[in-house]
Amino acid sequence: MEITKLTDAERFDPAKMTKNLLVASDHMFCDLYCLEPGQAQKVHAHDGSDKVYVVLDGTATLTVGEEVQAVGPGHAVVARAGVAHGIRNDSAGRVTALVVMAPKP
Amino acid sequence: MEITKLTDAERFDPAKMTKNLLVASDHMFCDLYCLEPGQAQKVHAHDGSDKVYVVLDGTATLTVGEEVQAVGPGHAVVARAGVAHGIRNDSAGRVTALVVMAPKP
Repeated sequence: MEITKLTDAERFDPAKMTKNLLVASDHMFCDLYCLEPGQAQKVHAHDGSDKVYVVLDGTATLTVGEEVQAVGPGHAVVARAGVAHGIRNDSAGRVTALVVMAPKP
Repeated sequence: MEITKLTDAERFDPAKMTKNLLVASDHMFCDLYCLEPGQAQKVHAHDGSDKVYVVLDGTATLTVGEEVQAVGPGHAVVARAGVAHGIRNDSAGRVTALVVMAPKP
């Protein structure tokens, strides 16, 4: 059985946020994003793929379209195909988020 | 912004396990499964869709193909298209799991 322990994938880099693969399949992938304070994923869009962020630890600042919002642990946010989105860490603590994307771009 | 608090979707039913929608998009959906002790999802397969289980609380018993394994919180398990899979709660406590499926069957 393919089992991944989420915390085993945790990796923080003082230079930039990290994306750490948890699961890749033909139809989707799941990453663990790790952001030190001040780190960010540039706002971008995917034409044909939806993305879901599930904040696991810390408070992330999510951008979806024109909206920017602080999102705490245990919340899921969807960015549908074609809609600009990004995550950043404006907080004083670390942020980890489970990120699902389908289909694989 | 479409934000769902996972615990807001939590719903336990003494009669059977529940599947509670968190996010639905064109390319995937995310459910929160809630299982009381003894409850189960029948082992089944989807021809064209992959499923990922992320156990959030409690210890679930996952079946993927011929394998059956106890899986604790913070672990992700993938069941690829065509492979039989299911979740049950053989423990004495409640189980919640985030379940992602792509594409929507």
